[in-house]
Amino acid sequence: MKIAIMGYGNLGRGVECAVRQNDDMELVAVFTRRAPEAVKTVSGVPVYHVDRLLEKKEEIDVLVICGGSATDLPKQTVEYARYFNVIDSFDTHAKIPEHFANVDKAAKEGGKIAMISVGWDPGMFSLNRLYANAILREGSDYTFWGKGVSQGHSDAIRRISGVKNAKQYTVPVESALEAVRNCENPELTTRQKHTRECFVVAEDGADRARIEEEIKTMPNYFADYDTTVHFITEEELQRDHAGIPHGGLVLRTGKTGINGEHNHVIEYSLKLDSNPEFTACVLVAYARAAYRMSKEGMVGCKTVFDVAPAYLSPMTAEEMRSRLL
Amino acid sequence: MKIAIMGYGNLGRGVECAVRQNDDMELVAVFTRRAPEAVKTVSGVPVYHVDRLLEKKEEIDVLVICGGSATDLPKQTVEYARYFNVIDSFDTHAKIPEHFANVDKAAKEGGKIAMISVGWDPGMFSLNRLYANAILREGSDYTFWGKGVSQGHSDAIRRISGVKNAKQYTVPVESALEAVRNCENPELTTRQKHTRECFVVAEDGADRARIEEEIKTMPNYFADYDTTVHFITEEELQRDHAGIPHGGLVLRTGKTGINGEHNHVIEYSLKLDSNPEFTACVLVAYARAAYRMSKEGMVGCKTVFDVAPAYLSPMTAEEMRSRLL
Repeated sequence: MKIAIMGYGNLGRGVECAVRQNDDMELVAVFTRRAPEAVKTVSGVPVYHVDRLLEKKEEIDVLVICGGSATDLPKQTVEYARYFNVIDSFDTHAKIPEHFANVDKAAKEGGKIAMISVGWDPGMFSLNRLYANAILREGSDYTFWGKGVSQGHSDAIRRISGVKNAKQYTVPVESALEAVRNCENPELTTRQKHTRECFVVAEDGADRARIEEEIKTMPNYFADYDTTVHFITEEELQRDHAGIPHGGLVLRTGKTGINGEHNHVIEYSLKLDSNPEFTACVLVAYARAAYRMSKEGMVGCKTVFDVAPAYLSPMTAEEMRSRLL
Repeated sequence: MKIAIMGYGNLGRGVECAVRQNDDMELVAVFTRRAPEAVKTVSGVPVYHVDRLLEKKEEIDVLVICGGSATDLPKQTVEYARYFNVIDSFDTHAKIPEHFANVDKAAKEGGKIAMISVGWDPGMFSLNRLYANAILREGSDYTFWGKGVSQGHSDAIRRISGVKNAKQYTVPVESALEAVRNCENPELTTRQKHTRECFVVAEDGADRARIEEEIKTMPNYFADYDTTVHFITEEELQRDHAGIPHGGLVLRTGKTGINGEHNHVIEYSLKLDSNPEFTACVLVAYARAAYRMSKEGMVGCKTVFDVAPAYLSPMTAEEMRSRLL
């Protein structure tokens, strides 16, 4: 199947790498809003300006849209779902119902499949919440994120005056995790679930105490958390904190039996060296599903909940049953 | 939807309890090969002899078949799939292709849905192998079982002369698990993955050294493992080892990036106080799916790979998207 990428940042590059790991796929084009000649792809695949997207319509089976959730995807996915089978990683949880409705309308009008909110959260974490809730009907759900880099929180620190550069890690609280795993059904506040660890490069002569205070008291971002601030040099930041790792855990604990006498713990966890590359791998697996579901005549907006797992695998049904079941 | 149970042992009783946790389901009957008056159900639901199964056909939406994989299910699931939507937990991995073919033929002839090999392994573990393989295309798979009771191994010990009772636990080797989680891609032998821990009640005057030797050298069951044998009293066995806990882990580690420079770990684990009750919960969730898929006109044999996750949840699509995605 022929894949194209719209938007070539970390995620787009991740999709390019992921397609190379799948024999049944070929990357045919990258589309960008920048000047195409300024974009250098890893594999040398042709880069076109987004204005030329529609003229390549017949050459593309699935378009993987790699824009941001704030402003790109609400426009792009809706626009392109009329012409292409599309996938996006829309991750503004609260706005998913609205995005779904808009994309569904466009995809149905175009007779295409559009998969939204594909990745790990939303995505694999959502799937695990659904499966665990369907199985353990009486229980409690927990999602922990990290240890990993939050781009939004890193950006928030960088906006503080006197800060040259910064990286923020979200870290699950180990004792909270243990309480969940022990079926204590804790009710956890924001502060009890995660801590925030900040690595900050201050400008020469900047007031570090003031910067630390501004970080720790920043509403929404840090005020509700126990936050640690480390001042380091730019060299240390580049050397020790250049990556974009992330991950997290989804747990559900529940009771069964005549009187709820038996406890069960379902736990799913991810430990990812590269957040965008892993998200890209999930997008590419669902691109395979979109292609196959479209071939079967399905149309409209879909999420991971609507995709039978078999559509994701390059194996035949017989291979899956004998090797994975 | 109206559920019936065929076979009322630990698993059948688990299904009865699980149905009680689901508002959209009703248990209408239990069928048994024993004398019905000898079977006492938890909820007081009517018990019938299996000879009366077909006369109750119109009252049953899904029949959950709770027999054993060795001899019951290869006959029962094939026979009943002609008349009912059925679910089983067939777990002889090597014979799944054959079972699938036989059940598929019967279900298609009867115009019914038959889901086989539903539970946690096969079942939830299989799903996690499939998802992880579809996402991380270059990597390694690992499945660990335990800590949990192996009924087959406990039975094997009980057959040794001089043994009055016994319980055997399969235990994953922690250092092997750590090596996997650290992306060392270890190639693990049988001995390196699991140990076996046996709690044995010997008959008065039995030669314990000889029993221990017979256990540790038993081919297929124990010879390839590091095995520990503890002699305890019947009272201790009943007090400390009466449960049927189990669980395990499915891991996949893989590489992404231009040169495979990033490692990722996907881990799914279960910690279950009651193996049969958890399996029953999975069966009941898939009974919901079978009912819905049958209503949509689908027929034939299905596995967990063929079931879109949304079919498992009692929530509406809108609720799922807003609460779980």
